[in-house]
Amino acid sequence: MPKGRGNRERLLRLGSTLLQERGYQGAGVQEIADASAVPKGSFYNYFKSKEDFALEVLDHYQQESCAELERILSGSGGPLERLRRMLDAGIAAMKSTDFKVGCLAGRLTQEVAGQIPAFREPLERHFQCVRDHFARVLVEARDAGEIERSLDPEATAEFLVNAFQGAALRAKAAHSEAPLENFRRLVFDHLLRLSGKRTS
Amino acid sequence: MPKGRGNRERLLRLGSTLLQERGYQGAGVQEIADASAVPKGSFYNYFKSKEDFALEVLDHYQQESCAELERILSGSGGPLERLRRMLDAGIAAMKSTDFKVGCLAGRLTQEVAGQIPAFREPLERHFQCVRDHFARVLVEARDAGEIERSLDPEATAEFLVNAFQGAALRAKAAHSEAPLENFRRLVFDHLLRLSGKRTS
Repeated sequence: MPKGRGNRERLLRLGSTLLQERGYQGAGVQEIADASAVPKGSFYNYFKSKEDFALEVLDHYQQESCAELERILSGSGGPLERLRRMLDAGIAAMKSTDFKVGCLAGRLTQEVAGQIPAFREPLERHFQCVRDHFARVLVEARDAGEIERSLDPEATAEFLVNAFQGAALRAKAAHSEAPLENFRRLVFDHLLRLSGKRTS
Repeated sequence: MPKGRGNRERLLRLGSTLLQERGYQGAGVQEIADASAVPKGSFYNYFKSKEDFALEVLDHYQQESCAELERILSGSGGPLERLRRMLDAGIAAMKSTDFKVGCLAGRLTQEVAGQIPAFREPLERHFQCVRDHFARVLVEARDAGEIERSLDPEATAEFLVNAFQGAALRAKAAHSEAPLENFRRLVFDHLLRLSGKRTS
């Protein structure tokens, strides 16, 4: 059933944008169906409920994000250069939607993680994957002598992932990349610099 | 009209908790009225709409948060000690509700800042106030030689406020203070330390 498959994929793709823009509570099944040019009744042929739908959207989002991180992490350049590229990719993605669309996982964390237990495990899996990629490149950076040896890669990765979420949240509210630029500057000019290279 | 005034205050106080727990979209007027033991019809005697109500709740929240920051900032101890106390107060507030209630401004930023323009200015005012307090104590810390001279107080304050939001978001999702503890450790053991005092 090629048409059905097309509908399903369109719902997942366009619904993802709507979930990020309006949030879980703000995006109704009717709107998701309308945005995807699929009759509302058909929505329930593909998904049991909005929760079921959002969990699948999140699963796709998680897989794509992690594949993208993997691609950048295994690319050329030194460890910090690749870390910078990972962060730049996140900033560029937000910028491409004029800061209307941020991190789906962040949005769902804020909105539903506390209330709908089914989201907790996939959200945790998403952040764990991002943290793991950051930690791996920080281990490399430490071994290459690019950052202080006293910086624990796991803890620093956790810090960076969360701090980026906060900066992204503010960028979205302000429709501006300034909070993300400021994040990048503080991280690379101060936190991830060797003492000897400091300008002070 | 003492009763009316009591209703209004109860709506603002209990509604604030509900807005933080459920979010703007998740908390209906009926629920807000129920939680405050006020008839739904009476809600509209005090507030024109949920938007009007939420804006007033945010205004109270902003004033209280800033008064609390002012109190801690003008207290005893060195600059970094007071900054730590400011952050600890935020962590303790979240912990006291078992991480169900986080920062109202963060929640509204995520949920409605992009969609309801009326929230943008008061949200910006809130974050500006917090940033200003952080920046003032960082200027003191720099002048007292407690942090690197190369750290710009304004930019660092902005970074910390946003990074804290991100850590708080994750703490809420995980019902755990671990992300906040990690934030505190990275900030005080690494970012806000003098090179000479580094352990590396």
